[in-house]
Order: sequence, then C-alpha cells, then structure tokens
Amino acid sequence: MGKFDTVSTHVDDNNGDKSLFVIKIGGNVIDNSENLYRFLKDFTALKGFKILVHGGGKVATQISETLGIEPKLIEGRRITDIETLRVVTMVYAGLINKNIVAQLQRFGNNAIGLTGADGDFIRTKKRPVKTIDYGFVGDINERSINPKNISNLMEAGFTPVFCALTHDGEGQLLNTNADTIASALAVALAKLYDTTLIYCFEKKGVLIDINDEHSLLNEIDQQEYMKLKEQQIIHSGMVPKMDNAFSAISCGVKAVIIGHSNDLGNLKKNQPFGTRLTENL
Amino acid sequence: MGKFDTVSTHVDDNNGDKSLFVIKIGGNVIDNSENLYRFLKDFTALKGFKILVHGGGKVATQISETLGIEPKLIEGRRITDIETLRVVTMVYAGLINKNIVAQLQRFGNNAIGLTGADGDFIRTKKRPVKTIDYGFVGDINERSINPKNISNLMEAGFTPVFCALTHDGEGQLLNTNADTIASALAVALAKLYDTTLIYCFEKKGVLIDINDEHSLLNEIDQQEYMKLKEQQIIHSGMVPKMDNAFSAISCGVKAVIIGHSNDLGNLKKNQPFGTRLTENL
Repeated sequence: MGKFDTVSTHVDDNNGDKSLFVIKIGGNVIDNSENLYRFLKDFTALKGFKILVHGGGKVATQISETLGIEPKLIEGRRITDIETLRVVTMVYAGLINKNIVAQLQRFGNNAIGLTGADGDFIRTKKRPVKTIDYGFVGDINERSINPKNISNLMEAGFTPVFCALTHDGEGQLLNTNADTIASALAVALAKLYDTTLIYCFEKKGVLIDINDEHSLLNEIDQQEYMKLKEQQIIHSGMVPKMDNAFSAISCGVKAVIIGHSNDLGNLKKNQPFGTRLTENL
Repeated sequence: MGKFDTVSTHVDDNNGDKSLFVIKIGGNVIDNSENLYRFLKDFTALKGFKILVHGGGKVATQISETLGIEPKLIEGRRITDIETLRVVTMVYAGLINKNIVAQLQRFGNNAIGLTGADGDFIRTKKRPVKTIDYGFVGDINERSINPKNISNLMEAGFTPVFCALTHDGEGQLLNTNADTIASALAVALAKLYDTTLIYCFEKKGVLIDINDEHSLLNEIDQQEYMKLKEQQIIHSGMVPKMDNAFSAISCGVKAVIIGHSNDLGNLKKNQPFGTRLTENL
C-alpha cells in the first residue's frame, strides 16, 4: 500500500507526533442519520488530533421553504441574502452543528461546535460585488485561518467541529463553502501538524469508471492525475475537487483522501480507504 | 461602598488573582439591539475571566410562529416538545449565540459560543415525568457542571458564551433555564476562581419601591434580606431570584449583583452598579 502504511502508523501510534486529520462531510452524510451515526463513531475512534467540517444538507432548504424564504439564484448561482443567512446560521450553527456535537460527546469525543467567528478562527472578506452580488458570502484567503487559536483549542483537549460559516471581524457572519474551509484549515495547520485532509462524499473515491465502484483508484499522484485528466478519464465534477486537493498538497498537506463516509473506519483498521492523493508515489 | 471596592480592585487589577465574572442576560437585553451592543462592549471591557450566559428572546417565539409551531403549555407551564427543541436549538445556539459571538469578536473579545453539550461543559438529566411531561428539559444538579473543562477553555484564552441548552451525555440536547445555568456555573467555578455572579435585567437592581428607581438598594446581606422579606418590602418575583442568589453565595460565590445591563460599565469605572448581595456586610 506504499505511503498508506505511513498514515496508518500515525493513526494507531500518536505519541506526540502531532498527526492531524481534517475531515469534511457533506449533505449526503448529514441527511442520512444511519450514515451520520456510523461516521461519527468512526471519527471518534481515530487517534490523534481531529477537526470536523460539515456542510448543510436538505434541512436548511426545508426550513427555508417552511419559513417562506425562496432560494435566491442569479445566473444559476446561489445568493445568500440576509434572510438566507439567518436560516443558514440557525440550521448550520444551531441544529446540525450542535446535534453532531451531542452525538460526538455520546461517543466520548470532546467536541466543540464552531463557526469561524468563534475564537476568531476563520476570518473572511465579504465577496466583492462584480457582475453578481452573492450577498453575505465570505471568501477565504491565505490569512483567513488562525492556526494558533485553533491549535490552542485542540491542545486544551477539544475537537473542533466547524460549520460553513465565518465572520468578517466587524460583527458580520458570512456563508462560506465547507470544502474550501476544510482545505484552508488543512493548509494552515500543516505548518504545525502532520496533516491529512479527508473529503467524505457519496462515492468510494476516484473511479476510473464512474458506474463501477470496483474501478476505484487506491492512490494517485500529481503526475498520474495530469495524465488521467488529459485522457479525460478523470473529468467533470471530479476535476475541480482534485485540482484543489493537489493544491493543498503543494502547500504542505501530507495527503488528501477522497472516499465514502461509511469507509472511514478502514483507516483505523489499516484497510484501504478511498483514493489517496499525494505529491509523488 | 464597603466590599464593592474589593470587587473593583479585582476588576482593574487582574494579575493572576483569578477573578471571574459569570454574567447572565435575558431576553430584554437580546431583543433591544442598542442595549445589546452597549452591554457587549462593556462586557468586553471587563478585565479578568468572564463567562456570558444568555436566554432566548422574542425571536424564538416569532420563528416558532412562522414555522407554524404552537407554544405548548400545560397548566401554564411551557413544554419543550421535539419541534420546540429544534427551534430553540436553531435560535439560541445558532442565531442569537453566534451573532453575539461575532459582535464580541468585533470588540476584541475572543468569545466562543457554546451549549452545554460542547466540551461536555453542562450535563443534565431530562426532567422526570410526574404530573406534567415537560418534554426535552434538562435539570441541573450539583454534578452537572464540568469546571475543569471550562477552566481549560478559559485558560486557553477563550471567553465562553453559553446559551440555554445542555445535553444528557447520550446524544440528546435539552432546554435548560438560563438563570440556573448561570448560578450553577458560578457555584462550580467558585472553587477555582474568585467568582462574582451578575444578573442583568430590566431594573436598576433591588428597589424598595418598585416604581421608584431611586429607591435602589446598593448592598444587602442575608440578614437584611430576611428582614425585608418578612416585612414584605421585598416580595413576589424578586424572592425566588434572591433566594437563589443567597444560595449561590452560601456555596462559595463571593457576591451576586442584580442590575440593569446598561449599567454594567459602572463596574469598570468603580461606580455603583445594581444591588450587591453578599453573605455579611
């Protein structure tokens, strides 16, 4: 399994080597209570420092609808107006985040639920209005993450659980992409920890044939990726995901794993999990 | 001003003497954005360790109504059914809590917004069903607060901001009275810190004549309180409030102050603030 063994060693033998997992789950995990339960249990079992980042899920849309707030779209892009921001703050930071925390506590994981405003952990800038006014959306830049404060929280014995909200430092909460939060956290904390970034989604990982779960790539490096992208074997939605992943790796993140949330437990059992992206195999 | 000077010294000269203020604000502060802004600024200016506890406010009722959830009352007591718990989790832990945190960060206070589930800080038991089933309500007992975890968070440089939610340790969030959370926190932390508990409400403090703000009692001890209670000069709603306050004092809390949120700034300016309750004057 090559470098995979190295990860496993860090997982099972965290004697001050400061390994860190930054793990992102999306709506597909949150919307399925059985998958969520299983994921949170496996997340708790992972040794070393851990950060969880979660997206939204269908409940935000449902509550918006019940409150009579219509989704705002301009040119197919979702807009966060003030009403949407209120709902997102309630659902992401309240309902989803705190229920995840309560579940993690049940499993013995000392979680704390956070937005980027808490602890001044993630400060972003409201997206400037060009052709489209995206509303209360915060864009992450290279100075957004406060690794010292996050490290202080983790070293004090807590597991950070971030929802997809940040702040501008002027009292304004801002809606921010959860994938970007996860990769920015991993990059910023890679200076302090031996960091692995994990994206959990609804597939086993990177598939050569999207309709065949057996065509899973166990490992891929930048060179191989460029080749498969050129041959259009890797295409469409997977391209930006993997571009971002390799960009995080080039910024110091040890590896990025893309896999199914139900398989996270494999990591602890030294079994293959998802597709592992590294700089060089 | 007698013992008031002692408090002021601790406020202005916190050189490792480990003073702590536990301050509770209710809906009357939260519902008035001007009062809230002023309070959060004054709260930030206070030196020493600080914990903020906040209640709900009208917004929870408004959102419940918009979502079509009718308030459940049995024999005039409010019931927290599962739908109400969801709204309360969204509004208290999401909307109100995270906006307070964003404001505090703007003022330079390194706040973290919490429920009792976060950090396993406050673990309660679901109220047993006797004649009334109160639903998802958690009752605090003497083992509910985890002072070590809270202290770890504060010593790591963060200001805890609690909303009125706790958990049962089995994954269930529970609605819990904010006044009780505040006094339980103060009592539990009084073992580690020189602790003052402050209740901010809509009056100047304890008034001899409820219609005359000039009849404010600056200080009162247990003996004087018993006398005024017997004479029915202190009566009705103020009695349980003050009984609880003196109970906290008998459990090690140095003083309890009951005052108006707009006057909190006086504490830093060595000016009288509200009514100060102590064991012996």
